[in-house]
Amino acid sequence: MATQGQVITCKAAVAWEPNKPLVIEDVQVAPPQAGEVRVKILYTALCHTDAYTWGGKDPEGLFPCILGHEAAGIVESVGEGVTEVQPGDHVIPCYQAECGECKFCKSGKTNLCGKVRAATGVGVMMSDRKSRFSVNGKPIYHFMGTSTFSQYTVVHDVSVAKIDPKAPLEKVCLLGCGVPTGLGAVWNTAKVEAGSIVAIFGLGTVGLAVAEGAKTAGASRIIGIDIDSKKFDTAKKFGVTEFVNPKDHEKPIQQVLVDLTDGGVDYSFECIGNVSVMRAALECCHKGWGTSVIVGVAASGQEISTRPFQLVTGRVWKGTAFGGFKSRSQVPWLVEKYLKKEIKVDEYITHTLTLGEINKAFDLMHEGGCLRCVLSTDA
Amino acid sequence: MATQGQVITCKAAVAWEPNKPLVIEDVQVAPPQAGEVRVKILYTALCHTDAYTWGGKDPEGLFPCILGHEAAGIVESVGEGVTEVQPGDHVIPCYQAECGECKFCKSGKTNLCGKVRAATGVGVMMSDRKSRFSVNGKPIYHFMGTSTFSQYTVVHDVSVAKIDPKAPLEKVCLLGCGVPTGLGAVWNTAKVEAGSIVAIFGLGTVGLAVAEGAKTAGASRIIGIDIDSKKFDTAKKFGVTEFVNPKDHEKPIQQVLVDLTDGGVDYSFECIGNVSVMRAALECCHKGWGTSVIVGVAASGQEISTRPFQLVTGRVWKGTAFGGFKSRSQVPWLVEKYLKKEIKVDEYITHTLTLGEINKAFDLMHEGGCLRCVLSTDA
Ligand SMILES: NC(=O)c1ccc[n+]([C@@H]2O[C@H](COP(=O)([O-])OP(=O)(O)OC[C@H]3O[C@@H](n4cnc5c(N)ncnc54)[C@H](O)[C@@H]3O)[C@@H](O)[C@H]2O)c1
Ligand SMILES: NC(=O)c1ccc[n+]([C@@H]2O[C@H](COP(=O)([O-])OP(=O)(O)OC[C@H]3O[C@@H](n4cnc5c(N)ncnc54)[C@H](O)[C@@H]3O)[C@@H](O)[C@H]2O)c1
Ligand SMILES: [Zn+2]
Ligand SMILES: [Zn+2]
Ligand SMILES: [Zn+2]
Ligand SMILES: [Zn+2]
Repeated sequence: MATQGQVITCKAAVAWEPNKPLVIEDVQVAPPQAGEVRVKILYTALCHTDAYTWGGKDPEGLFPCILGHEAAGIVESVGEGVTEVQPGDHVIPCYQAECGECKFCKSGKTNLCGKVRAATGVGVMMSDRKSRFSVNGKPIYHFMGTSTFSQYTVVHDVSVAKIDPKAPLEKVCLLGCGVPTGLGAVWNTAKVEAGSIVAIFGLGTVGLAVAEGAKTAGASRIIGIDIDSKKFDTAKKFGVTEFVNPKDHEKPIQQVLVDLTDGGVDYSFECIGNVSVMRAALECCHKGWGTSVIVGVAASGQEISTRPFQLVTGRVWKGTAFGGFKSRSQVPWLVEKYLKKEIKVDEYITHTLTLGEINKAFDLMHEGGCLRCVLSTDA
Repeated sequence: MATQGQVITCKAAVAWEPNKPLVIEDVQVAPPQAGEVRVKILYTALCHTDAYTWGGKDPEGLFPCILGHEAAGIVESVGEGVTEVQPGDHVIPCYQAECGECKFCKSGKTNLCGKVRAATGVGVMMSDRKSRFSVNGKPIYHFMGTSTFSQYTVVHDVSVAKIDPKAPLEKVCLLGCGVPTGLGAVWNTAKVEAGSIVAIFGLGTVGLAVAEGAKTAGASRIIGIDIDSKKFDTAKKFGVTEFVNPKDHEKPIQQVLVDLTDGGVDYSFECIGNVSVMRAALECCHKGWGTSVIVGVAASGQEISTRPFQLVTGRVWKGTAFGGFKSRSQVPWLVEKYLKKEIKVDEYITHTLTLGEINKAFDLMHEGGCLRCVLSTDA
């Protein structure tokens, strides 16, 4: 292809400063170096982690940057030594890398990977500790090793999953973050068994994916908790069987749930990012075995707390990142499950816009009716 | 026997008020009612939970009461319907009951039992919600369903483990609390695998039993942390391979351990009851999989806290009560292991006194050199 080895100039949404509207710029994207892959992004969704960093809430957030981490596209070119993907492959960029060789990957106990973390954590690429993005010569930081709010991006080869080319990219882009996070929290982190009673705090995309995961795991009761009762209708379609709005109760929500379940739930999931809800989610668990999984990302500096007696009497407190899925090996499997209609994806997409309308998409995230908004990157 | 069906008058150490020396009194012990067992206690050790309640730190502690929960004795008589033990059986009273029938026992997920909890939690027996102890007609509360600081006690039949009569009661009384708690924290709660790196905070009886458990589980490094360096010599005999005294370091102890272990430990155990150490114990765990088990009992009202990111990046926070052992079925198994010299018991006994010297025994607990003090109950 004509572009291989060349700098590509394309459109990208640049976050110049926290909280200032993103600006669609002509961005120069350098060719991939050894171990890197340049991807033409066709569709990207927005996730709360983008809004979180854009809002200046992440003290490690670097500006200017190109946000975005839930996307799908096609490999444009690959750098030296890249063997697992080639130009034309359909891919999903993965903010959790999977190298297969590091202490983490070899442990068999986690989906986290240490290979490129030192670089992606500070917005650059491993090989030369530099960015591949620039605007008029000024470097623009990468974000989460993905930076998908751009028509082209460069990622590490350990951070890209090759998927079935039959999958519609405008849908499966969601398998880059929110949906796998919810499903995996149930299947991999909590390992919910059939017959379990499950509580889900927060019925956004992640909470609904937890509901779907719990339903397929055979949970007997799936209790959805949200302060926005409008969420309840949609939630039924994802498997939620009962609803509780904390605003309808005087009692602390953990007590409401303990009463409702004769002692507490078997599994709970916090899908909001609120530290007091995280506490409630732990404390509504059944004595002896109840397990609570933190999925939501709290504002920086905030802390969770509880009485240690809660743990001494058998409750377990866990968390999950990307639902415990190993990205390169399991995202393709999730795509297959979607193609076989074993998991939902389309149902989470409530809005579609273009990259040029990205600021409107950020506004939509604060509206109750929005689950996922997918942007096409055509100019 | 002449005493069956009769009130027995015997010596017991009564805690009339928090923090006031115990008083050896002539106590009347009523005969066991249906589902109850009267036990002649021969040996009892002291545990920190006794000191905790005696010190008035347990807001649910009731006075006057007879403390004690780490003991061994012989069944004197049984109430109606008691079939699993009979007079003459050697037994260990168990503060964690095991009925085999309640929601907890049938769950297969916990060693907690709900059967008699409502009564033992408020210092009485289930059948009539009354105490079997009195002094000059004044009722004295039971404690933890065991009350072993007495020559005779009455316990529920679900709270007594029948053991091999060949076992020396003056030793195996320790299998009523501290030693199983430490061993079980490793074997049942954490399920430490061979090759693991383990950190133990607090090298008292419980911490040393954790060390022994970790050693038999094949841990590759067992790091003992204590502010009293005198503990280190003894600890070596229990399997601890490295020592850290937080007082020797400027850095927070979690950072010291992370540095020492190239990223953190696989398993940590808090065996002190200090909430800031509980946080350190979690935070010294390896990202991705490190599991921390709270064993120590914190002062009432105190809370643990950490940043939720610690859990989202894969650490797990748990706790344990009686090491997760099912009391009636597994205490006899632990006694057998002791008889086969597969677990230590004698090595924890640093002092022996008589029931009459119990206040001296409480004083000894605050001395660094004391692990367990065993009291004989002969007058
Ligand atoms: N751990 C991970 O790997 C990972 C991955 C993706 C997203 N996340 C996090 O998961 C969280 C959820 O993401 P989402 O996209 O579903 O968000 P969302 O905003 O769409 O959904 C949150 C829901 O919580 C409800 N809510 C807010 N406050 C509440 C309260 N006090 N009690 C009950 N309900 C309340 C809201 O009404 C909303 O329905 C976010 O914090 C996100 O950053 C984590
Ligand atoms: N969960 C359960 O079922 C259970 C059962 C028995 C005992 N316990 C609890 O376990 C704990 C330990 O019991 P034990 O009998 O071994 O107690 P212990 O007092 O003999 O041992 C505690 C050790 O911790 C050390 N220590 C104190 N503060 C420290 C600090 N800040 N940093 C490092 N080390 C410190 C002391 O020097 C001592 O060696 C107690 O809280 C007890 O109540 C719990
Ligand atoms: Zn996301
Ligand atoms: Zn790796
Ligand atoms: Zn004890
Ligand atoms: Zn039971």
